[in-house]
Amino acid sequence: MGGDHGPVEICKGAAAACSENPDLELVLVGKESMIAPLLDDVSSKIRKRISIIHAEEQIGMDEHPTIAIRKKRNSSLRLAMEMVRSGEASGCISAGNTGAIVAGGVLVVGRISGIDRPAFGVALPTLNKYTFLLDVGATVRSRPLNLFQFAHMGNIYSKKILGVASPQVALLANGSEEIKGDEVIVSAKELLKTSSLNFTGYVEGDDIPYSKADVVVCDGFSGNVVLKFAEGLMHAVYSILKEEMGHRILPKVGMVFMIPMMKDLWSRFNYEKHGGTPLLGVNGIVVKAHGRSKAPAITNALRVARNFVIQNGVELIREELGKS
Amino acid sequence: MGGDHGPVEICKGAAAACSENPDLELVLVGKESMIAPLLDDVSSKIRKRISIIHAEEQIGMDEHPTIAIRKKRNSSLRLAMEMVRSGEASGCISAGNTGAIVAGGVLVVGRISGIDRPAFGVALPTLNKYTFLLDVGATVRSRPLNLFQFAHMGNIYSKKILGVASPQVALLANGSEEIKGDEVIVSAKELLKTSSLNFTGYVEGDDIPYSKADVVVCDGFSGNVVLKFAEGLMHAVYSILKEEMGHRILPKVGMVFMIPMMKDLWSRFNYEKHGGTPLLGVNGIVVKAHGRSKAPAITNALRVARNFVIQNGVELIREELGKS
Repeated sequence: MGGDHGPVEICKGAAAACSENPDLELVLVGKESMIAPLLDDVSSKIRKRISIIHAEEQIGMDEHPTIAIRKKRNSSLRLAMEMVRSGEASGCISAGNTGAIVAGGVLVVGRISGIDRPAFGVALPTLNKYTFLLDVGATVRSRPLNLFQFAHMGNIYSKKILGVASPQVALLANGSEEIKGDEVIVSAKELLKTSSLNFTGYVEGDDIPYSKADVVVCDGFSGNVVLKFAEGLMHAVYSILKEEMGHRILPKVGMVFMIPMMKDLWSRFNYEKHGGTPLLGVNGIVVKAHGRSKAPAITNALRVARNFVIQNGVELIREELGKS
Repeated sequence: MGGDHGPVEICKGAAAACSENPDLELVLVGKESMIAPLLDDVSSKIRKRISIIHAEEQIGMDEHPTIAIRKKRNSSLRLAMEMVRSGEASGCISAGNTGAIVAGGVLVVGRISGIDRPAFGVALPTLNKYTFLLDVGATVRSRPLNLFQFAHMGNIYSKKILGVASPQVALLANGSEEIKGDEVIVSAKELLKTSSLNFTGYVEGDDIPYSKADVVVCDGFSGNVVLKFAEGLMHAVYSILKEEMGHRILPKVGMVFMIPMMKDLWSRFNYEKHGGTPLLGVNGIVVKAHGRSKAPAITNALRVARNFVIQNGVELIREELGKS
């Protein structure tokens, strides 16, 4: 029910994910009367693998996350998360209220014991590869131990999901010199230096697009600002390009020759279309899709969730960082 | 002497600034034996307005800022700043060690009494206008009062230098809803709500390129990360575009038609070329140019410094925020 284009685009994306992955079974949680008709055109072969669980309520985009999760016990988000907790579902995705996804991850699915705070991670397209950036907004400000745990979780994700053999893990700072960073970052650096990770020290903002590290660790505030800024910048450049094209003849002619290349570039750097931001540190698979997600982004978020299930990601984090 | 292309490009940029502004007189502070020959080709009409002050030492890019400023009393940066303090110079620019520029601003030029911390501000090109973002790295972490003062300084800069009649001032946060932000940002918001500014609340990362505010206030860590990320991203996109062009014939043909447009776009969003980041909150005009500055960026930084002198920027900040 969440996001700007739910449930229409979510149903479309779900059906596409099912045709892509014959092993995938999906449960759509939300207003049954709205969802069922949206599946009418889905082939019966696919439709068989999609079930609907009715949820009377939904959490709005502007509601207070913790209060909404606590009070709206019949909301689609809460019900989906309860299915993850009980094991009925291997994981869940939502394009809804980000804060409520985090609150639900912590309060309903539960934290992995030993992990203080969860982190959203995103695989950012950069010059030569994907760089896994975390936290992009689950935990606003972090203590050194949080950053240390984020680094470990990012390392596991980079290895198992992104297939990097020995991920280079770095801390985001306001300069690459040793003397940079605030107290929290300096302490996190000291912790990481003595860890088993392939820790390479600080990176600066411009090192991210330049693929200087496989995993970049920061607090949720900085990560969120960077990710959203990147989205906005690419959109702004695209808008200007489109407008300029409208005014000028020659560039328009030129563009005809360039369409495939520009499309490639745009789809590569259109961050919000990538979709699928896992919430790491909770006791189950929870993936957030962008609020503006259309069907392809939903399909991608389901791909992310499925890979995480197959790779046993939560179990790996529990083994490495959890306390039994 | 500072920056990647000093003193060659600095001398070129200085000469260009003098021909652009007949009222400008410049003093180049550094190794005289290196600087003097670089001015040999400058027309005597311009050369008359450029003098050289010899500095035996220089502060390296990797030196510890505070220690270097304290100990290297004959460094080019320190001597230039002493000229600002004494009034011999109306302002100074440097492409050198950023930390040393801040340390020199505070220790040599001195803070405006009543202002706790200085801020670097940068006029970022966005969709429809320039947005003044501060702090981009002078003060790593800020208290609410610092952010409050940054907002006022940004407001003055936006009005007087960027010519915005009633600047919309916003705080950068991890979401636009009232409940976002950490404790520092929430307190700063409360302070700003009761101020005389046209304060519009929070903006998110993607609101910056979308020109949602004239002045965006954040701590030096976040601002630095955003600014550098923007630089790096535009570079990465440009590199990929260039490489793809090399491989494909049709796009290359198409590009021929688009060169003027792409050049416009690139020069607009090539953040580091804009140059000229004023250090606000100190008792004199101090402008930082990007370490990678070539002559045009130096000329631009001198333009920024000159405008600030003409508009009496330091005096305005002192009047609005200073304590006598």
